[in-house]
Amino acid sequence: MNELKSYLGKVADATEKILGELLPAETTLPESIHKLMRYSIFAGGKRIRPSLLMATYEACGGTFGDRNALKAAAALEMFHTFSLIHDDLPCMDDDDFRRGRPTAHKAFTEALAVLGGDALCIMAFEVLADIGNLAIVKEIATALGTNGMLGGQVVDIESEGKQVPRETVEYIHNAKTAALIRSSVKMGAMLADASEEALTKLTSYGNNIGLAFQVVDDILDEESTTEQLGKDAGSDRARGKATFPAICGMEESKRYAQDLIDNAYKDIAFLNERADVLRNLADFIITRIS
Amino acid sequence: MNELKSYLGKVADATEKILGELLPAETTLPESIHKLMRYSIFAGGKRIRPSLLMATYEACGGTFGDRNALKAAAALEMFHTFSLIHDDLPCMDDDDFRRGRPTAHKAFTEALAVLGGDALCIMAFEVLADIGNLAIVKEIATALGTNGMLGGQVVDIESEGKQVPRETVEYIHNAKTAALIRSSVKMGAMLADASEEALTKLTSYGNNIGLAFQVVDDILDEESTTEQLGKDAGSDRARGKATFPAICGMEESKRYAQDLIDNAYKDIAFLNERADVLRNLADFIITRIS
Repeated sequence: MNELKSYLGKVADATEKILGELLPAETTLPESIHKLMRYSIFAGGKRIRPSLLMATYEACGGTFGDRNALKAAAALEMFHTFSLIHDDLPCMDDDDFRRGRPTAHKAFTEALAVLGGDALCIMAFEVLADIGNLAIVKEIATALGTNGMLGGQVVDIESEGKQVPRETVEYIHNAKTAALIRSSVKMGAMLADASEEALTKLTSYGNNIGLAFQVVDDILDEESTTEQLGKDAGSDRARGKATFPAICGMEESKRYAQDLIDNAYKDIAFLNERADVLRNLADFIITRIS
Repeated sequence: MNELKSYLGKVADATEKILGELLPAETTLPESIHKLMRYSIFAGGKRIRPSLLMATYEACGGTFGDRNALKAAAALEMFHTFSLIHDDLPCMDDDDFRRGRPTAHKAFTEALAVLGGDALCIMAFEVLADIGNLAIVKEIATALGTNGMLGGQVVDIESEGKQVPRETVEYIHNAKTAALIRSSVKMGAMLADASEEALTKLTSYGNNIGLAFQVVDDILDEESTTEQLGKDAGSDRARGKATFPAICGMEESKRYAQDLIDNAYKDIAFLNERADVLRNLADFIITRIS
């Protein structure tokens, strides 16, 4: 795990460096929105999505730190942060804290949080367009849209307080969380010009760890303290959220997460030792609960 | 003017047809967000931005109704509608009516309005990426970002109830409204492979009519009835919005709008009779108040 920690740190440093270059300075007019964008993006996230992109890029023959891969990594964090800012809004999950700090609409205003989220999303597309690869622009747009992340957020909200079948929870997790994680892996492969066959297997890997990630998140929300999480623990249950532990119980949820990780391992077996980091990343997701 | 009305009708029909094809059906899951997207986009707008794009495309040698130009026109309406939905939110302008109907968050929920706006923005990028022209993806992303439309919205909100200099009002109008209108013209020229020189002149034309459009909007807000506008008249003044009539008075505002239109005419003189529709569109903007 120490090896992975060092890899995560290396990616985080490189991603934050390029984010710092790409995002307008806090002194650029209008200052308020640029302050909000930087406040939200430099909040100490683990940069899992950039790490998945870069590790896949390397596994498929790319070189760590290539400018285009870094730009794509930065765009992923912008998209991810955009979704968190809007998700935290009073009319959505109404969260006051994230990563131990006030959420964007609390630290600034609700109006700025709406616009700052929008701006991060638009800027991410600008950065991706700059890479000169239309396929990745289409890939991420599909992953984020109503057949992906946004569709998952809608069903998530609409399922609150309701008894929903396991398929609905799987739909939510697949769309809301796994879509962007899967896309991070796919973009890494696409930027490295991976073969169709490799892309298919890596897409499956991305989907398996993406689903596992959300199942583990649900488990952590039940089992951790607010201090450990940096946000309100137990908030899913309080809100009647459709989660795996709520539907299948804790034991079955843990078993399901482990199955997903096992499948992810199989997906990338063809890469042999080139997939070591991807295996470590899969382990990292599951060991958060073990 | 009859000629222009028929042109606007022709563009509106073609744009709405392709929007109908591109947007997911109301029965596609999750239904609620797709219903909101269609409710908001099929609200009887005049499709000014698609008309500007198509007229510029034709003036530069393109053929009316080419698939890529229509797709770009549809994307423009998606971006425009995204900005209106978020602008109307309670935490922003808090408007209950638009075009005589309840705004999206009133007809649906606030959460869906946030997500539905996001979805239209993301889908517009997906449609643009499909055209296969990276330059227009970059162009629109810049026009929409914090140096364009979103920046204008921020300063607009932050200037409410304050005494601001004329330069600030010009900044707001330039960024909030003119950026997207200018971009509509530029995209038409870019899709028709216009020369650099033509692009520069058409950019100036787009900026002049874009500014005029917002000045005229401010004038109409003061002089019309709620019924005529389809939204609350006099709401700018009630909210202490930074508008031209508020800063320079009504006479000077009308003179300024006419000057902008005169300059727009000069910008496109080089296109001779090929610019007839663009001249009619410029006239259309100013005659709303005369």
